[in-house]
Amino acid sequence: MTRILIVYATDYGNTKKMADAIAEGVRSTGAEALMLEAEKVTKEDVLSSQGLIIGSPVHMGSADWRVKKFIDTVCSPLWMKDALIGRVGGVFASGGGFGGSGAGAELTLLGLMANLAELGMILVPLPKNTPEFRSGGIHWGACGRSGGPNMEHTGVTPEALKTAFHHGANIARIAEIHKNHSPFLAAAAKGA
Amino acid sequence: MTRILIVYATDYGNTKKMADAIAEGVRSTGAEALMLEAEKVTKEDVLSSQGLIIGSPVHMGSADWRVKKFIDTVCSPLWMKDALIGRVGGVFASGGGFGGSGAGAELTLLGLMANLAELGMILVPLPKNTPEFRSGGIHWGACGRSGGPNMEHTGVTPEALKTAFHHGANIARIAEIHKNHSPFLAAAAKGA
Amino acid sequence: MTRILIVYATDYGNTKKMADAIAEGVRSTGAEALMLEAEKVTKEDVLSSQGLIIGSPVHMGSADWRVKKFIDTVCSPLWMKDALIGRVGGVFASGGGFGGSGAGAELTLLGLMANLAELGMILVPLPKNTPEFRSGGIHWGACGRSGGPNMEHTGVTPEALKTAFHHGANIARIAEIHKNHSPFLAAAAKGA
Amino acid sequence: MTRILIVYATDYGNTKKMADAIAEGVRSTGAEALMLEAEKVTKEDVLSSQGLIIGSPVHMGSADWRVKKFIDTVCSPLWMKDALIGRVGGVFASGGGFGGSGAGAELTLLGLMANLAELGMILVPLPKNTPEFRSGGIHWGACGRSGGPNMEHTGVTPEALKTAFHHGANIARIAEIHKNHSPFLAAAAKGA
Repeated sequence: MTRILIVYATDYGNTKKMADAIAEGVRSTGAEALMLEAEKVTKEDVLSSQGLIIGSPVHMGSADWRVKKFIDTVCSPLWMKDALIGRVGGVFASGGGFGGSGAGAELTLLGLMANLAELGMILVPLPKNTPEFRSGGIHWGACGRSGGPNMEHTGVTPEALKTAFHHGANIARIAEIHKNHSPFLAAAAKGA
Repeated sequence: MTRILIVYATDYGNTKKMADAIAEGVRSTGAEALMLEAEKVTKEDVLSSQGLIIGSPVHMGSADWRVKKFIDTVCSPLWMKDALIGRVGGVFASGGGFGGSGAGAELTLLGLMANLAELGMILVPLPKNTPEFRSGGIHWGACGRSGGPNMEHTGVTPEALKTAFHHGANIARIAEIHKNHSPFLAAAAKGA
Repeated sequence: MTRILIVYATDYGNTKKMADAIAEGVRSTGAEALMLEAEKVTKEDVLSSQGLIIGSPVHMGSADWRVKKFIDTVCSPLWMKDALIGRVGGVFASGGGFGGSGAGAELTLLGLMANLAELGMILVPLPKNTPEFRSGGIHWGACGRSGGPNMEHTGVTPEALKTAFHHGANIARIAEIHKNHSPFLAAAAKGA
Repeated sequence: MTRILIVYATDYGNTKKMADAIAEGVRSTGAEALMLEAEKVTKEDVLSSQGLIIGSPVHMGSADWRVKKFIDTVCSPLWMKDALIGRVGGVFASGGGFGGSGAGAELTLLGLMANLAELGMILVPLPKNTPEFRSGGIHWGACGRSGGPNMEHTGVTPEALKTAFHHGANIARIAEIHKNHSPFLAAAAKGA
């Protein structure tokens, strides 16, 4: 069975709600979703999953330090060993800060993407035809706005959660496709 | 007199409106604003200005090719000669695409910022206390959303134009401050 | 037969050499490589290819304007129509500028990646175990340094070309895998 | 007296060496340098400084989690209060990973820059004419390579430390210039 690991940090529960919707989307494809807070993930959790989806609140224009701690302490040793090359990854975020132009969500998502790219993972974008894309996403992944114009906590919208659901399903389907392929390892072997 | 050069490309006139508002902001400080379409800017226009503000529509997640042509053909030879080190720069954008998370505006602004940084320019961000920041900006610069939820052309809002006005004024004031200083050239001299 | 389109601009021939090596890598997998200068690519070239690889010299910290013109004028209308969702993409670059830290190659590659992500393409990174990775790449794609410490034109190294070869082969293999799958369209249909 | 706060994390001492060189550069201008590990910085340290320089090792393509924790827990509350708008900031990094194209240093520096931009700080780039720029920097800031081709720990070079020295001096000089100016607050007041 294809397993997708969803790693997240959350402050007010919004990123967790996005993670829940992503997990639901993963399960809708028949895959298993393992959803864990960043500080509880072990190396085994990552190694036993065909896909990795990382999400974070947007804090000062980049990912939450707890998510980065997971990347530095759990993912980095796996990078050293080339352990995850050819698996499948994706990213998501939520944020409530000021700013009508994403408030730092894009660079936050790219910072998370960098980790997946370093690990040699195939990166899944969020296509424009994804349901509710206009309010729940950007091309790099699902992204739910959790705050209103005065920074009041409004919570992520049902539309953003729908986008997140489909992002999870997309990634699970692509992980399923890649489960029996090793396009990168073949390349390395031939070049050796 | 301190002169600020504003370089932009525009499709439906929205980025031009943002440029107009920035120019007004520049002039409100007593400085001169020279506003030119990207394809008409000469090397002399850049050299005779204490500040450079570059703006673009967001196209496929990065700046318009006409703006990039200005950077490659007009700015690049000036970079070779270290001709603009210590001057002052800033960026802006407008965009109407789908996506509730900035639709690529942030990476577009960063791509423009890269040009200013390469030129050795002091970079002016957009502080959160700027009037109408919530609808007209992101920390990297002024940014006006020009489209509605169905990608219909709504035009940039008066709020975004107000933010743009203040962004222009900020950059002009900082260019005025730096007009008589050479903090970088002193450093280079000492190190030689 | 799986066709991979390689789009590039070149100044001194270095990015073209990288493109040649990528094309060779594509062909080594049995796929067809169509290699075209950015200004000559038509919409039909893109539509008839299962994969798209875009490369550029690093100019002032972002992609060459001719590559961006291809993105704005050829890719943008295809984005409007969701025409390329689910296809496979990758990026490469070459650069000779000063600076021991990549000289702007990373943001250049990310700017190109943004186009592929907007188009809804599955993004192929460059894994660390790729032959000659240390001198020919970064996690986002193949990247060849073409200049020496004094900005003299040294040309891209054989090592960088080897990395580029494998990057092309990786992308072709992944495009072949995805040729008969529509993971995104299924998601959209279910959500409608 | 102008005080510059230098915040860093370090693994093998390389980023600390870069921080030391930056501090020396700061002091060479007559300013005070306060150098602190990320986990020891208090809000008062930041508030009492006219400039903030943040540095990090490159880990998996972004900043060390300890640096991000400083940003999330110390800087974020100051951002809420607009407490640092108009001060001066800059960034630096060191890294030893594979990859001939910066190995993720650029996005790491941009992630740190995002924090400074959110805080409303004037951003200081690293001009190309800085001594030893070719081996010690990129346009966003000083950057020292600490590893050799086989990932062996070579330590940052004297050249990179020289670049770092000048980066510190540049930032101190610009902080000194801005000490008695409030270009942003004036803008906000006029717009209110």
